[in-house]
Amino acid sequence: MSGDNEQKLDLLKRSLLEIDDLRSAGAVLAWDQTTYMPAGGSASRARQRATLSRFAHQKATAAELGCLLDALEASGEDLSEPEASLVRVARRDFEKANKIPASFVERASAHRAQSYAAWVQAREEDDFAATAPYLRTSIDLSREYAEFFAPFAHICDPLIDDTDEGMTVAEVRQIFSELRPALLDLTRDIGNRPQVSHACLKGAFGEDQQLALALFAVEKIGYDLARGRLDKTVHPFCTRFSSGDVRITTRTRKDEFCEAFFSTLHEAGHALYEQGVSEDFDGSPLGRGASAGLHESQARLWENNVGRSYPFWEYWYPVLQETFPANYADVSLQEFYAAINRVERSLIRTDADEVTYNLHIMMRFDLENEMLEGRLDVQDLPEAWRARMREDLGVEPETDREGCLQDVHWYAGLIGGAFQGYTIGNILAAQIYATALQMHPDIPHQLQRGDTSQLLNWLRREVYQHGRRYRPDELILRATGRPLHVAPYLEYLRGKFGALYGLSVEADCS
Amino acid sequence: MSGDNEQKLDLLKRSLLEIDDLRSAGAVLAWDQTTYMPAGGSASRARQRATLSRFAHQKATAAELGCLLDALEASGEDLSEPEASLVRVARRDFEKANKIPASFVERASAHRAQSYAAWVQAREEDDFAATAPYLRTSIDLSREYAEFFAPFAHICDPLIDDTDEGMTVAEVRQIFSELRPALLDLTRDIGNRPQVSHACLKGAFGEDQQLALALFAVEKIGYDLARGRLDKTVHPFCTRFSSGDVRITTRTRKDEFCEAFFSTLHEAGHALYEQGVSEDFDGSPLGRGASAGLHESQARLWENNVGRSYPFWEYWYPVLQETFPANYADVSLQEFYAAINRVERSLIRTDADEVTYNLHIMMRFDLENEMLEGRLDVQDLPEAWRARMREDLGVEPETDREGCLQDVHWYAGLIGGAFQGYTIGNILAAQIYATALQMHPDIPHQLQRGDTSQLLNWLRREVYQHGRRYRPDELILRATGRPLHVAPYLEYLRGKFGALYGLSVEADCS
Repeated sequence: MSGDNEQKLDLLKRSLLEIDDLRSAGAVLAWDQTTYMPAGGSASRARQRATLSRFAHQKATAAELGCLLDALEASGEDLSEPEASLVRVARRDFEKANKIPASFVERASAHRAQSYAAWVQAREEDDFAATAPYLRTSIDLSREYAEFFAPFAHICDPLIDDTDEGMTVAEVRQIFSELRPALLDLTRDIGNRPQVSHACLKGAFGEDQQLALALFAVEKIGYDLARGRLDKTVHPFCTRFSSGDVRITTRTRKDEFCEAFFSTLHEAGHALYEQGVSEDFDGSPLGRGASAGLHESQARLWENNVGRSYPFWEYWYPVLQETFPANYADVSLQEFYAAINRVERSLIRTDADEVTYNLHIMMRFDLENEMLEGRLDVQDLPEAWRARMREDLGVEPETDREGCLQDVHWYAGLIGGAFQGYTIGNILAAQIYATALQMHPDIPHQLQRGDTSQLLNWLRREVYQHGRRYRPDELILRATGRPLHVAPYLEYLRGKFGALYGLSVEADCS
Repeated sequence: MSGDNEQKLDLLKRSLLEIDDLRSAGAVLAWDQTTYMPAGGSASRARQRATLSRFAHQKATAAELGCLLDALEASGEDLSEPEASLVRVARRDFEKANKIPASFVERASAHRAQSYAAWVQAREEDDFAATAPYLRTSIDLSREYAEFFAPFAHICDPLIDDTDEGMTVAEVRQIFSELRPALLDLTRDIGNRPQVSHACLKGAFGEDQQLALALFAVEKIGYDLARGRLDKTVHPFCTRFSSGDVRITTRTRKDEFCEAFFSTLHEAGHALYEQGVSEDFDGSPLGRGASAGLHESQARLWENNVGRSYPFWEYWYPVLQETFPANYADVSLQEFYAAINRVERSLIRTDADEVTYNLHIMMRFDLENEMLEGRLDVQDLPEAWRARMREDLGVEPETDREGCLQDVHWYAGLIGGAFQGYTIGNILAAQIYATALQMHPDIPHQLQRGDTSQLLNWLRREVYQHGRRYRPDELILRATGRPLHVAPYLEYLRGKFGALYGLSVEADCS
């Protein structure tokens, strides 16, 4: 590379680092706000975070940054890898950021705060009508947002592209049209079999022991506590300040340990991904997970494919019994394993099992697109929700609080693009885990010994280290040899739940 | 005020708020670094903080800010109070910030990191010579720094003015020349009396109980936990993110509770000051304590004048006995009170009692000025230290680790201006507390009942609420009716320790 180009690349990296520093500082303030900040800090904290966002946005849209990218792209010199990826990703982020006028960001942000506050109260009071005007504004804002990225095939495409680069409504619909009938069949078949008991999950569980057990487990699977920590928050999350500081949070319940244990595993999955990104990318736009779907896939892989598997509990169940002897001394591993994998047609997405979970998601995806397309009016949402619940799950909420008011997503300012990632994540988790098992068939035996190192090393090498170096579809192809497809997921679900519920081979191959 | 001026004032406030947001964000990152950050975060955290400082400095020195101040000052219109104070303080901060070239800040910051690291190792190895080259550079940097503010009467004046506005070496020397002989006399007189025992302070003390007791105590004296919190750090401190979020930290020892209790009281004193600043000043340069000396005075007032007084412990000693029955069930209040106020000629500043503490400070002030004036060479510092220890305290360190290597201040990059504030704080604490007692003679009786509300309300009204609205000397005059003077402090020390050690009336009046 010429000295001139090298100098430009150096300037680019320094600009990007500055943006990353401002965003990371904002993330620290957000983490503190949910973990340790006294109530009195709220008002100023919101303002401090807004100031940091404003500076970061100014830097991320600065004309000088565009000039540097222009010059590097136009130089005609071949950039080495991963410099070429850096320029590509920086260009994408720069163009995206520059398409949104600051005035829109301010309007959307003000609406977000109002809409969220209205939803909190409306959910409390089961008063959907009170949120309707906010939802209408959210739809308008989402459409306005999408228009900044015109042309597009579907109004929701730009919203999906924000977090799942390159994915479209058409592609998601194609995937879901394959998945949904298979899941409806599987749910029906399971519903026809005797239900398993989950009584053993209820009881009294000390908070300190729950947290210690969860921390022990995630440390054992590879979450590096010298570069992370676990705290309590109302809503669990994972946040990255640098490759050396990736934190997770969890929450506990007094009457069961699953909430704390599996949410910690879930967030640790996110954190293993972030801790595994190459240190060389730290502070650059390459230095984090490749997409929302891929990120969710790793949370799900560790929470479900690993964390709710029988081999995993062959190692961990004796530890659980030792931690909570009063609860589990007399419960068999088989009984416990069945309980944590019980399939049930239920009303609440976040409580749903692996089989029915995606029915909740696909329904939300379809309803939000109908609203964005203008085919479903906001006032008809509660009834559309109930109808779809009846159709897919055979249960129906008596209140909107247990219906279309249950999730924050639609009430947080924009509508569209936030739900599909959960199911994409589940599908990818199965596809990636199946590849790992093909390459290393010994992984389940290692899980029986509490050893996840081979799995983690494979994931780090094939997925985590690359950060945003490759486009999501390219990364999936490189890691698994195939594009995203649902077969491994269906195979996983039919195998696991077929065995658990004693389904016939016919059901397995339907 | 004209609309034009009002608009300018509004712009000024918004600029200042932005600077405050960036600095507060930096303070959150610093707090997190010492409380909860995993070790892996260090390198990026240093960079993130530096980025925030750079942005804050850019904003604080921006030409537009200067233009706004020019226009407001030149408008000829009378600004109302406290707007006039705001413009005055903003002008002072702007001029100060603009006199320091960014290149100097970078050099000093790089030197600070190296010097600190060298000191940590040198103290560990008792190797003063290893720090000498860094100290020489620190002296050069301090002199260079001072020159930015030329002319001055003494090279250290600009360094003192940074934290204690308007104070000079000449003024400090005048005060110390009055204080030192009186303290030497008092120390000698006490040394001639039978020593009191402090055996009851040693023992085994559970950490949870220590922290709970300290938190209970500071909440009871008025520290608002809805706008603050207590955490553990290696070095206790108080930090302000906004008027609604003023945090303190402490540290514990297993073999005594005093460290945790009194350091918490000390930091809570700082925090009561910050929590008491008028909310109207939040986010502006008026929104914090007026000077280092005044800040220290409030820490000392609550730690010593209140927290080591007999009436205070008449209420708190039974609580202490209940908290640590094994330690205090058989110890009388009189015995305990004597133990926490024992006067001893010792080597370490941070362990020193109220009487000898200032001898440690005055010695450091004199030695650093001799170095800055070029009258004391760095290589002669250890011997000069020992000589002064012999002269003032009659004890002499066998190692430099217990001598001139004990405090971080000189090894943190610049020399000068950091020590005098401790003694100024002690003097002011006595002067302010004496005024409070004059106005409200019932305060000691209220302390006996665990009631500090009248004292706190008086301090809030006379001192805290004003923030930086008045210059330090003006604030002292307004609050106490007199300029800073040592008589109340000497009277306080002679009264308290004369009674404790049974000194004759003659000694009281010496």
